[in-house]
Parts: sequence; C-alpha cells; structure tokens
Amino acid sequence: MAEDKSDIEIARGASLKPIQEIGEALGIPPASLLPYGHDKAKISASFLGSLQDREDGKLILVTAINPTPAGEGKTTTTVGLGDGLRRIGENALICVREPSLGPCFGMKGGAAGGGYAQVVPMEEINLHFTGDFHAITTAHNLLAAMIDNHIYWGNALDIDPRRVTWRRVMDMNDRALRGVVTSLGGVSNGFPRETGFDITVASEIMAILCLASDPADLEKRLGDIVIGYRYDKSAVYARDLNADGAMAVVLKEAIQPNLVQTIENTPAFVHGGPFANIAHGCNSVIATKAALKLADYVVTEAGFGADLGAEKFFNIKCRKAGLRPAASVIVATVRALKMNGGVAKEALGAEDISAVQKGCSNLGRHIENVRQFGVPVIVAINHFHTDTDAEIDVVKAYTASLGEEAIVCRHWAHGSAGIEELAHKVVAVANSGKADFTPLYRDEISLFDKIETVVKRIYHGAEVAADARVRDQLAEWEKAGYGHLPVCMAKTQYSFSTNPALRGAPSGHIVPVREVRLSAGAGFVVAICGEVMTMPGLPRHPAAERIRLDAEGRIEGLF
Amino acid sequence: MAEDKSDIEIARGASLKPIQEIGEALGIPPASLLPYGHDKAKISASFLGSLQDREDGKLILVTAINPTPAGEGKTTTTVGLGDGLRRIGENALICVREPSLGPCFGMKGGAAGGGYAQVVPMEEINLHFTGDFHAITTAHNLLAAMIDNHIYWGNALDIDPRRVTWRRVMDMNDRALRGVVTSLGGVSNGFPRETGFDITVASEIMAILCLASDPADLEKRLGDIVIGYRYDKSAVYARDLNADGAMAVVLKEAIQPNLVQTIENTPAFVHGGPFANIAHGCNSVIATKAALKLADYVVTEAGFGADLGAEKFFNIKCRKAGLRPAASVIVATVRALKMNGGVAKEALGAEDISAVQKGCSNLGRHIENVRQFGVPVIVAINHFHTDTDAEIDVVKAYTASLGEEAIVCRHWAHGSAGIEELAHKVVAVANSGKADFTPLYRDEISLFDKIETVVKRIYHGAEVAADARVRDQLAEWEKAGYGHLPVCMAKTQYSFSTNPALRGAPSGHIVPVREVRLSAGAGFVVAICGEVMTMPGLPRHPAAERIRLDAEGRIEGLF
Repeated sequence: MAEDKSDIEIARGASLKPIQEIGEALGIPPASLLPYGHDKAKISASFLGSLQDREDGKLILVTAINPTPAGEGKTTTTVGLGDGLRRIGENALICVREPSLGPCFGMKGGAAGGGYAQVVPMEEINLHFTGDFHAITTAHNLLAAMIDNHIYWGNALDIDPRRVTWRRVMDMNDRALRGVVTSLGGVSNGFPRETGFDITVASEIMAILCLASDPADLEKRLGDIVIGYRYDKSAVYARDLNADGAMAVVLKEAIQPNLVQTIENTPAFVHGGPFANIAHGCNSVIATKAALKLADYVVTEAGFGADLGAEKFFNIKCRKAGLRPAASVIVATVRALKMNGGVAKEALGAEDISAVQKGCSNLGRHIENVRQFGVPVIVAINHFHTDTDAEIDVVKAYTASLGEEAIVCRHWAHGSAGIEELAHKVVAVANSGKADFTPLYRDEISLFDKIETVVKRIYHGAEVAADARVRDQLAEWEKAGYGHLPVCMAKTQYSFSTNPALRGAPSGHIVPVREVRLSAGAGFVVAICGEVMTMPGLPRHPAAERIRLDAEGRIEGLF
Repeated sequence: MAEDKSDIEIARGASLKPIQEIGEALGIPPASLLPYGHDKAKISASFLGSLQDREDGKLILVTAINPTPAGEGKTTTTVGLGDGLRRIGENALICVREPSLGPCFGMKGGAAGGGYAQVVPMEEINLHFTGDFHAITTAHNLLAAMIDNHIYWGNALDIDPRRVTWRRVMDMNDRALRGVVTSLGGVSNGFPRETGFDITVASEIMAILCLASDPADLEKRLGDIVIGYRYDKSAVYARDLNADGAMAVVLKEAIQPNLVQTIENTPAFVHGGPFANIAHGCNSVIATKAALKLADYVVTEAGFGADLGAEKFFNIKCRKAGLRPAASVIVATVRALKMNGGVAKEALGAEDISAVQKGCSNLGRHIENVRQFGVPVIVAINHFHTDTDAEIDVVKAYTASLGEEAIVCRHWAHGSAGIEELAHKVVAVANSGKADFTPLYRDEISLFDKIETVVKRIYHGAEVAADARVRDQLAEWEKAGYGHLPVCMAKTQYSFSTNPALRGAPSGHIVPVREVRLSAGAGFVVAICGEVMTMPGLPRHPAAERIRLDAEGRIEGLF
C-alpha cells in the first residue's frame, strides 16, 4: 500500500536493475547504450537507425479528462499500465516526457508518476537527468547570440532589430526575465532592444526535437526556424545565419532517447517535454518510433486533458510522424469528476453521488471526441482511497451508457497488481482491429478552417472570434507556403471553453483567437486563445527554500 | 609525428580503454564510478571520502611564461608529462580544468591539449562534457531568481535593488547580455533594475566548486555568498534567502570529479574551470586531493603565465587546501620567447638568436618568482618544428645560468616518447627533498599589503596605485572579518605590468587597482588591475557558422 509512504520513499525503496540489463532485455547492444550513471542511459542514434525494417508494436495513448486541482494521475496511469502489461506477460514499453528542472524549485512536486507507479531515479529525472534540457537551452541561446552578433557586425542580412521574434530561454521560473532590454552599456555591447526569456520547455527547439524523425531532419528543421523579419518584412531563417549546423551539434546527444525503468523494472523512454500550451506536449517522435520497434505495446501520454493533449497528439504528432494509435485510455478520478460536477476541493472527501453524475458530462465529451479520431476508448478510474463503491458505480454505468467500459485501477497503491484488468482490456481492444486512425482535418483546408474545426468539433464552441489582423496573418502564411501545417491550439487546460472556471461540458461558447504564431521549424501554427504564460514565476515561498541535502547526501524537500 | 594530422584526427585515431577499466586500475570500485557514456565518468563523493587515511602522492605544477599569440602549450605539456611519467613506470595522474562550452562557438580551438598529448573524448570535453557547467549556470541563476522573487513578494530582507551585486550567467559569448534591464512589462514582472550576465566560468559558484573541500564545505560556502546590500548597507547572504541548500542539490553531481583518459590511456581528472582572471584559474581542490590519494605523481596546471596562474595556485589554492607542491615545470617555447624578445608573429618562422636571448628575460623572471614559494623549478621547452638547435641552446644556456635545467620536450609530435627526459627529471626533483612550499604572504597582513606584496615581488612593480574608495573598501572588509582572505589578482596575462604590449621583464611600473570585489563564498578578495571582461562576445565570423555534423554524425569545424 502506498498510503503510508511518500513517493520518494517508495522510489528509494525500489530494487533497480543495472540499466545495461534493462537495455539488454530490449536487445540493445552494450555499445549502443550510453550510460549516465548506473540507472540512466541514452540509446545511440545509429542503433535506432538499424531498426527501420522491424514491425511496429501497438501504440496506446493515455489521456485524461480536464485537469482539476484534485489530480488525475495521467503519468501515474501511463507508468502503471506499462507495468500492468508486463505483469500479464506482454512486451511493453513506456514513453513519457521529461520534466522541467526550473519549476521543481517553485511548487513542490515532480513529474515521474506517483505511488507504486513511478519511473526512477525520480530525483535525477526531475533535475538535470541526462542534460537534454541544458542542451536545448544552449542551442536556443546560441542562435540568439548569433542574431545579435550578426546585427553588431554590420547586419548584412538587414534584420529589423524591432522585429526579432527569437527570444532567449532559461530552465528557471524567473519572472524578472519575461521582459528585458539588452545590449545596454555602450557601443561595444551592441544595439539595445526589447526582448525577453521564456522557460526552456517553451522553446521551439524543444518542439523541434520532439517532432524530428532523425538527426538530419532535426538539422533541417533548425534551419527552418524564422528568427524575425527584415526591414522589408521578409522572414529571416536560422539557416541564413548559418546557425543550424552548430545547433545540431549542441543537440547531438539530446536527440537520443533516454532509457530508465519503473520501480517494477519495466523499461521506459523519458524523452522531450515540450510545453503542452504553445507546443504539442508529447514526448519525442524518435522515442515513440524506437519504442514501437522494440516492444509489442507502447504506452504513451499527452499533456493536459484530451481536448488539448489528445487533439494535438492526433492532429500534430500522429499526422506528422505517421503513427496509428491502436487504443486510447482516458483517465478519470472520482474526485476530479466531482470537481467537474461543482464540488469545491475542500469537500471532496465526502460521498457525493449527484456531483459525480453531473461531472461525468466532462468524461463523456472526451470519450466522444477521441472516438472521432477512429481510436477505440477505454476509461481508467484511477482509484483514490476515499472513493465509495456507489460513486464508482456511477462512473461505470455512465461509461457503459456510451457503449464503453470503465475499469477501476489501483496501481498507485498496488503497482501492476492493481491494474491487471485494464492491461487485459487494452490488449483486447488493441488487437480487436477496431482502430482506424484518421486526423480531424485534412492538410489542404485553410489554417482558419483548421482552427474552426477544432473549436467546433472538440471544444463544442459556436464560433471562432478572430479579428482581421489574425486572419490576414494566416492568409499571409498560406501565401508563404505554410498553409499545409496543422494548428497547435493554446487554450486553458481547465475547460472546453476559454474560461477556466467553466467545468463540465460547456457548448455554444465563442473561442477568441487573440494571436497566431508561426513555428516554422517545428511545423505548426500556434493559435493562442487567451493568455499564454511562457515564463513562470516563483511563489512567495518557493520549494527551493526547503530543498537541501540530508546528512546522507540525499535530496530533501524536492517532493 | 603530429604535423600531418589535426588534433581531432589524432584524438579520433586513439585507442581508448573503457572508462571502467581506467577507473579499476586506480582502484575505484565499479559502484563508485558513475559512467557518462563509455569514455567519461564521475567518481562518487562517498568513495573520495573513504580515501582520507591514505598517503599523498607528489604534486607537480605546470605553469608557463607569459602567453603570446604564438602559443605555449601548458595543457599539452601537462598531459604529455602525465603520459611521460607513466611511460617511465611511475603511477601518475593528470588534473586539468574543464573548458567552457560558449567560447567554442567563437574562436576555433579547444582546451584539451594538442597533438599526441590530449585528453579525450575531446569534442565532448569541450562541449557539454558531464554537465558540470550547466549545473553551475543553473545554481547561479536559481539564486538570481530567488533574489528578484524575494523583492517581488514584499522584500522582507529590505534588499536595496540598486545594490544587488549578484548577476546572472550563461555559458555563451553573448555581448548583448553584458548590460540589461530586467523586470520590464508591468507589475506582475517585478521591479525593473539594471543588471547583466557574465559567462558561467566567471561565476563565483565556479570558484566555490573549485575551492570546496567536500559537499558540506560547498554548501557552507554557497551560503556565504554576498548577493548585495540592504538599504542600511549591510550585506545580504545567499543563506538569508535560504538558497544554499537548493544550490547544493543542483551541484550534487557537479562536485564529483570527472575521469577521462589521455590518448595514451593515462587517467586524467578534468574538473572545474574558474576564470583565471576574476578567479584563481585552477582545477578543483577535490579532484587534486583525490588524485594525490590515488597516484604517486599528480601533474596539474594553473591558468595563464606564472605571474597570474602560479601565484594564485600557490597563494590561494595551495594555502587554502593545505597542498604542498613538490616541483614546478615552467613551459616555454622558442616562438613565444622570440615574441617576448620583440619579434612579430609573422616573422616567427626565421631563426633569431638575439630575439630568443632577449625574450629569455621573461622566462628568468618566472623562474625567480616561483623559487620564492620554495618550489624547485624545471624548464620545459615545448618543441616546435621550426625551432633551430642554436635557438634551443640559447634557452638551455640561459636557464643553466640561473642554476636550473631546461629540457626539450617533443610530446606534441611524439607523445610520451618525446618527454621521457623531463619525466625523469621531475621524479628526481620531486624526490630530492628540496621543496619547502611557503605562500608569499601571511594571512595576518592587511589586504592592501597582500596586493602590494604580489605587485612588488611577483610583478616587480614600483607601487600600487589605488584611490581612497578602494582603500576604504578594503578597510571595511577587514572590519567585517574578511581581512584574513588572500587576494585574487585580475591583470592582463600578457605582461608583468598592466600594459599588455609590455613583454619581457619590465620593472618599476605602477600597478593601478581600479576596483576590488569580495568573493566571500569562494574566500578571496579580487583586485582588478585594468579592465576585466566577464562576458566575451562572438567575432565577426564565429566558429559556429562552420560547425556541423558530417555525414557520419561526427563534429566538423569545432577545432
């Protein structure tokens, strides 16, 4: 039982296998497995290249209802399901995202699962891990330095310093860096201009790393980045600055997937972690594709609720990478459904049948949405010890009324033993031949029509509100040859609408698109519905104040 | 012969041993050796702790004449001497500094030795290596974020935002970041203030990491950092912000020394790389002390010429860490001596006996200086193929006239086979019992007297010029309890004077101290003689424009 132990205590109590052994079991030769300590490794690009002719396993997406402060446990369920599939004798592999280091110092909490369903070593995964985010920070800031350096030495490209859109990044919650003026202090420091820093996960390079198919594609996409505009308003590419090659060198190791294990020794790829807001929020295509070559079942996740995460997983990642998911698990908790049904967080401990019933509308909407992509759905009820049988029965009956099955999972408390039923069901569904994946819209329709399709068919909104500036910008990009790109929606994760307080399953709302951004290297057009925060701040009492090493050199206060 | 192959070709042609094997030969148990790929590893802090009771080997410092554009090869000779000692049957270990990633994208050139005397894998050592610099960047910027965050949330410590001395860092040559205004954009982004970024090697945390004796000492020193001043002008420490614990966590891996090998499979610790300008420019105390426990001879280097590097190695590192060097090698090249004798770089190819003779004054000064510390001296003539026998004879005769020996070393072209004579000589001198190390000044004299001692006895200057502001500041720090600290001189590396063009052995000059800075965590007071650049810029055509991966995925254009 997990209830009397913290996540970190459980993680430290786990009996890990040497990472070489985990790699060997996957058929990775020792020379292709690059260890980082005894419990982490990277898999060499050349080995991945050698897998091309193998058959693919089946891809299972774990997504969720809209997140609430009650917690849903999407990563925990992804990890638990991987363990569960192994337990019932299947060859399964897990693909999740790398957590960002900076936010660890803000609010307490990691992103490596929880209870008896975790990937380990959790402290290292949450901190420097294998250095991927540091490499992305460096590549991003190298390009920034080369831009200002180019302007300093004569600006042969005629870049308009007021129209440099490429900012700098840092993997830190540092609100002071959101808006800065650089190059102060005199002639030798360049031309002062207004710019700012985003957090590293928000870098377009992070999205590029996660969508690239191989190192050559990575370098091509890096060259495609639009860094700003000339005085004549034509786009300037990273390639024009000859920055793409050096950036690819900086990312040479980062593009290789990381292998770790769960506390039950199931192999897990933890690779890439793009912002689920201004990017697509999924782990890397390289890791997912490699996993499909190495295992019969690959369990992966997508950021936030299914309206954002699954939509972008299907419409961006699967479309672009040619992935065909075989089944989808939608995670719900009784507590989160109650919150969707109007209960305050403080009152979640008490049984409330009618609130569960009411909140099920949120689950129902996600079920319908995912079905539109031709991917069969299973509902996982991530069990919490305060859940009553009556409450659970409500969820089961509701799901059954939609023709699907809801299965109670107790992986948090019991590990793989608590999730066998879901594992069996996933195997059955994935092999049923029912899946027939198709993206929601075709490449050929206009960018605006793509946005409208998502708003109407996923958010169930009445219309898109966008002023002429936004529509003109989209039309300009279409003329420039970007019309075939998918759209990457940026919207609050708490609601189908743009109002975070509107839980449940609202419909008929208007979705305002305030701004659009081109990520030419990543290959999508971002539609911003509401405010997007690309650099968080620290809270009044940041976790960093309590984080330290204990007498045995172990980390205290991180989780 | 090295002449027909580039450094990178030689490095790639080396036959490396698995790093586990290199570690095993040093008696490091596999569990204490944390691999980073197959050719790099960190040595666990707990293993280092277990070595305390062993006897120390002998410490050999490699230093040099004043650097010139002709090149001296201090790191190359350090590596070559380590290989040479192994060749003649001695148990030797090399300790050098980690190169900085950012500058690799500016001027072409690495910092891992050259020719047949290199540490490998050179590309990785020059780029991300094991992530130490990224960790230092993160720890530094975490403290910066916590400072602004503290001010944002009410400023309970009453920090004067105009007197925050802690800047931010990035491992990048980015002149645009030297002077910035942060927190622009409105109330939610904090209080705008003027600040800037230094390059990571210039961070006080880098100096702290290199002077700390163990993880507990590291955390204490982090807490000791003065981040700025209150409105009442009292100092604010990192400890006051509760930032020390989290910074120590971020540096948990970085404080463990890195083990690599030379192309002749000699073990080498490559750890820490503080700016030889505003810091002391030596590799970490932890690595040096561990090496002394693991080998009979430890060869290490100090940044720049002996006036800066060796002086600080002796007066700061050895004093504070209780190290007692047994011998010192001063590296000179015929070419650099000719430049010190007034020859232009373009004319170095032609024999010029009188210029060599004239330039020897620079070598002579360094010999005399090092002797003052009670450490015996050997001169290494790092051979270049254009050197003539007559030129070499001049250097040998000059050195002999001072009672010392100069030995021609051909390690660049021939590896250890070219440096046997020096290795034998080093062993003889180190075991002669002649060494009797003593720092140049006592802890008890005033800070100003310490500066004056270095200026008069090392630089052979007539006097120190410092205005009342500087003298008052030193007096204030003495009152605050910092009077016992050593001074860390920041001066041009090209001359004994503050005029970089004044080569040879000038004397009687005035040394202006323009500014003093307290590094309370590192434990020294910096005396700035002239300008100090703490954030470099990229050249008109940065190396980054030519760096890329070739068709086989190998790095091109880095060296």
